Amino acid sequence: MELSKYQQSFLSYLQDQDFNREPKNLYEPVDYILQLGGKRLRPILTLIACDIISGSFEKALPAAMAVETFHNFTLVHDDIMDEAPLRRGKETVHHKWDINTGILSGDAMLILAYQYFENYEPIIFQKLAKLFSKTAIEVCDGQQLDVDFETRNDVTIDEYINMITLKTSVLVGAALKMGAIVAQSSDEQAEELYNFGVNLGIAFQLQDDYLDTFGNPETFGKQIGGDIIENKKTYLYLKCLEVANTEDAEKLKFFFNQKLEDNSVKVSEVTRIFEQNDIPNLIQGLIKEYTKKSFENLNRLNISESARENLINFGKNLMVRKV
Amino acid sequence: MELSKYQQSFLSYLQDQDFNREPKNLYEPVDYILQLGGKRLRPILTLIACDIISGSFEKALPAAMAVETFHNFTLVHDDIMDEAPLRRGKETVHHKWDINTGILSGDAMLILAYQYFENYEPIIFQKLAKLFSKTAIEVCDGQQLDVDFETRNDVTIDEYINMITLKTSVLVGAALKMGAIVAQSSDEQAEELYNFGVNLGIAFQLQDDYLDTFGNPETFGKQIGGDIIENKKTYLYLKCLEVANTEDAEKLKFFFNQKLEDNSVKVSEVTRIFEQNDIPNLIQGLIKEYTKKSFENLNRLNISESARENLINFGKNLMVRKV
Repeated sequence: MELSKYQQSFLSYLQDQDFNREPKNLYEPVDYILQLGGKRLRPILTLIACDIISGSFEKALPAAMAVETFHNFTLVHDDIMDEAPLRRGKETVHHKWDINTGILSGDAMLILAYQYFENYEPIIFQKLAKLFSKTAIEVCDGQQLDVDFETRNDVTIDEYINMITLKTSVLVGAALKMGAIVAQSSDEQAEELYNFGVNLGIAFQLQDDYLDTFGNPETFGKQIGGDIIENKKTYLYLKCLEVANTEDAEKLKFFFNQKLEDNSVKVSEVTRIFEQNDIPNLIQGLIKEYTKKSFENLNRLNISESARENLINFGKNLMVRKV
Repeated sequence: MELSKYQQSFLSYLQDQDFNREPKNLYEPVDYILQLGGKRLRPILTLIACDIISGSFEKALPAAMAVETFHNFTLVHDDIMDEAPLRRGKETVHHKWDINTGILSGDAMLILAYQYFENYEPIIFQKLAKLFSKTAIEVCDGQQLDVDFETRNDVTIDEYINMITLKTSVLVGAALKMGAIVAQSSDEQAEELYNFGVNLGIAFQLQDDYLDTFGNPETFGKQIGGDIIENKKTYLYLKCLEVANTEDAEKLKFFFNQKLEDNSVKVSEVTRIFEQNDIPNLIQGLIKEYTKKSFENLNRLNISESARENLINFGKNLMVRKV
């Protein structure tokens, strides 16, 4: 599958969007964040799904744009909530402008996302908007759970998987399903694509958790150990508490109660505890499990073998990434 | 027209909404702001419009709920931007919880608003969602213009009217038009109702500007002179700059450059300058103009004379309010 074909097509559609409109202080930040780059994985999945089912993908471009606009809306508001100064190596919107601009431009992007569905006739429009609203609310729920977990000490692994499913994975599933809806696929096919995306999204997020601690500092985009520094209760932490002896568990809890200036000892110590308790292997096992599940969803799809192979390769490529 | 009939029906529908769901930290603020009261003018207008056209209003309840949910979303995010501690005499959401909760609960409300349209079949759904998105973007544009005006010294009266039209009045028009859409009225009727609402909304906002300075302190809900204290460039200020002699104009500009601890002199002096320049009469004249325009829209509507009379009375009641 030539991913570059979808990517180029999407980027060219994105360039054609006119955000050069008034009031400038509202739409310049929208243009800025949408042009900031990123892998465009979600809109590409919308195009692929439409192509696989119907043999063409151009008609899915507005839906793909809705997905990307929504994703960027969540980045703008999340960055405010996380007080993040940088995103993809550039200033975040609320940092470059101010918090109020971030709030209002984000709001506008959420509405603009819905407007892209107006390119479709009523029945398709309603299916897309319904799936979109359901997904968007789930993403809000996931974000709130993520915030809630920061101050809770009794988060279970199941709760964590549920949180990342809502916050990250349902949008990957919805991106694929939207392509299927535009292609007017059967409900069964659309559902398998959705589940493929959700399972792949969970694997993807767990891989992100893994790389945040064990990734290659030279190729990983973010600071290695960022989650440890922020006391993020990811799978690594939660699984380690479950399997470690009392001493290691107490040490881990101790470190995750600290907010430090110099984090070098904390990061290296926590990493050592994770390694000592076989956590890298355990998370890799879980990633394989979700990847396998996602491939099972693919096997149930009634598509050509070459399309299936290509989607499997897409998934595999996503999983072996080091960045 | 028994307004209480619509109001009770709406309030009972509102009570039936279940926001007692997880995550609590996301939906408790939604429930809180929606229960905080208010006149419920917008959803009532949706019900009235549907009733006038089709003879019943119950089927417009979800659309009315969408309008009210959206309106409350704007209140939550606007209160963050304005750093307002109080709303209707009670704590604002970001003050009772925190800013992040205000942002995320607001986002959820915007999505929930769209979900209410899922109660309608695809063609009605698309019409409602399209009008809603167009209106919501206009409200964002209006909010941004309002922010921009704070730091501009060359705002014209036309720009001001355009700003309040976007920020306040299009939603009043859209509320009515949504009722007409649910009632499956002709496009012409829906458009007249929309324009009636927009013109009435402008008159309403100008009346609000008037009352903010010249209202009865005992019955006006907010602090008299609040706009003067905040240096808000309302019609009163802009018109006064236009008609006043150089001395008064310079005084006015001087006062509107001050942020003071004790505002009593500023409020009384600015009020005196307004009165001296006949501004209360000038704004009342403009309010009458927009009210008249709105009644002309009504006269072009193909509805029963009693329905027309009732809408005129609704408008008149709105305009003679002192609070």
